[in-house]
Amino acid sequence: MDFMTLIDGIPSDVVSANDRGLLYGDGVFRTLKREGGGSRCWARQYAKLSADCAALNLRCPDSAILATELAQLPPDCVAKIIVTRGPGARGYAVSGDAGPRRIVTASALPDYPSSHYMNGVKVRLCGLRLGSQPRLAGVKHLNRLENVLARMEWKDAAIAEGLLLDEAGNVIEGTMSNVFSCRAGVLHTPDLGRCGVAGVQRDRILDFAAELGLATHVAPLALDELMAADEVMLCNSVIGLWQVREFNGRVWNGGAVSARLRSLLEDRDD
Amino acid sequence: MDFMTLIDGIPSDVVSANDRGLLYGDGVFRTLKREGGGSRCWARQYAKLSADCAALNLRCPDSAILATELAQLPPDCVAKIIVTRGPGARGYAVSGDAGPRRIVTASALPDYPSSHYMNGVKVRLCGLRLGSQPRLAGVKHLNRLENVLARMEWKDAAIAEGLLLDEAGNVIEGTMSNVFSCRAGVLHTPDLGRCGVAGVQRDRILDFAAELGLATHVAPLALDELMAADEVMLCNSVIGLWQVREFNGRVWNGGAVSARLRSLLEDRDD
Repeated sequence: MDFMTLIDGIPSDVVSANDRGLLYGDGVFRTLKREGGGSRCWARQYAKLSADCAALNLRCPDSAILATELAQLPPDCVAKIIVTRGPGARGYAVSGDAGPRRIVTASALPDYPSSHYMNGVKVRLCGLRLGSQPRLAGVKHLNRLENVLARMEWKDAAIAEGLLLDEAGNVIEGTMSNVFSCRAGVLHTPDLGRCGVAGVQRDRILDFAAELGLATHVAPLALDELMAADEVMLCNSVIGLWQVREFNGRVWNGGAVSARLRSLLEDRDD
Repeated sequence: MDFMTLIDGIPSDVVSANDRGLLYGDGVFRTLKREGGGSRCWARQYAKLSADCAALNLRCPDSAILATELAQLPPDCVAKIIVTRGPGARGYAVSGDAGPRRIVTASALPDYPSSHYMNGVKVRLCGLRLGSQPRLAGVKHLNRLENVLARMEWKDAAIAEGLLLDEAGNVIEGTMSNVFSCRAGVLHTPDLGRCGVAGVQRDRILDFAAELGLATHVAPLALDELMAADEVMLCNSVIGLWQVREFNGRVWNGGAVSARLRSLLEDRDD
């Protein structure tokens, strides 16, 4: 399978050259797993898509329409939903009739090494610092040049992810993942009120933590605090959860919290 | 004329749905005027395109190829050149063969009221504050959601532009223009090292100022300083130069510096 794409429900692999998604990154997206013909955590995925559309004052397509389109993708794949503001005349102003455009596309499930799950991953610290924009923070919009530039910083295939700091030097996220640390029974994850993308798996972990007897703490996370953690974890909807094995000169061994959280994310669909 | 578009030199109005320009805003653009069959300030436009491509580590198309494509557009139009990193597999990492894609498109010249040039324009202060990202500041890239959100703040057609501040409250730019103020023979324009787009007309004004006996000062520009200016001006490659008539409770009458700078921008092509 290479790509399979539906544009507004119609099989196609092209979009209008004057789509505002291309012109300005005027849109949002979701990446999720399809497994055995189902779309993982669909209720949460749709709620997040809807919230992100609202942040851009973009009409969100109906859940039922998107679900129907997702069902036309291969039963096991990575599904991506892009919602853009559609074609527009030149200029930043939005014309009244600019409706949302849906791009629903499938790509192959990635083939990550099993060691990423069994032993953890090697992670680097990126040089790029995330800028601050409270109006867009948390939203998975199509303005992703910071992620692209950060991901360009390394080519070594042995490095699975790069962590990003904000201008103050606090840890925010990975280029494609959210980050958690666990120390003395408390799960810490960065506050994303000024930069970063608040992913669905991050929300699930925050919701599920109590079931594992863990308190949660969402606040600025200093690099020093992260380095002192008992376990450090990365999550997103495609990788699930990886424990960090090597980062910034420290090595962590397999941790019980990471393993239990990973199982919980895999076993449940809420 | 509605739109006329060449994609990599071939007439078409669609791009691949997996173009990284759409997926991540991974590209840059230029907007320029064609007049009487020529592309205005082409040497500067190309130099800026080339510098912006370099900022994203994107290969810039040859000047001769772009010039040939521009020559196929209507003799009098607004030309837009978009360079994206082209189609890519899912994920932020750039695959080795990702080449640049050229989108060259024409749209009709806008029909701004003559009073914008004769009497100046009414401008508002936007609520959105520009975030800071030194790695992208100055570059006219495709991540333009800040501009889109700022432009959404007003619908009143009598307001020609909105000015944007940074987080510190300094004036940076308009949603689609650069800003200059003139006070006691000195032209002031904001430093764009942390946010904003450094446009070609801004560079021209900075280069031409000495010919009008004006000193230039590129530095953070406080809102108070702007309000105390003798004249305030907006520029871009489509509007040329507009003097600000009304902004933030103050009214300015026609100014000599604005008029002379406008003529210079119009008369010359360097």
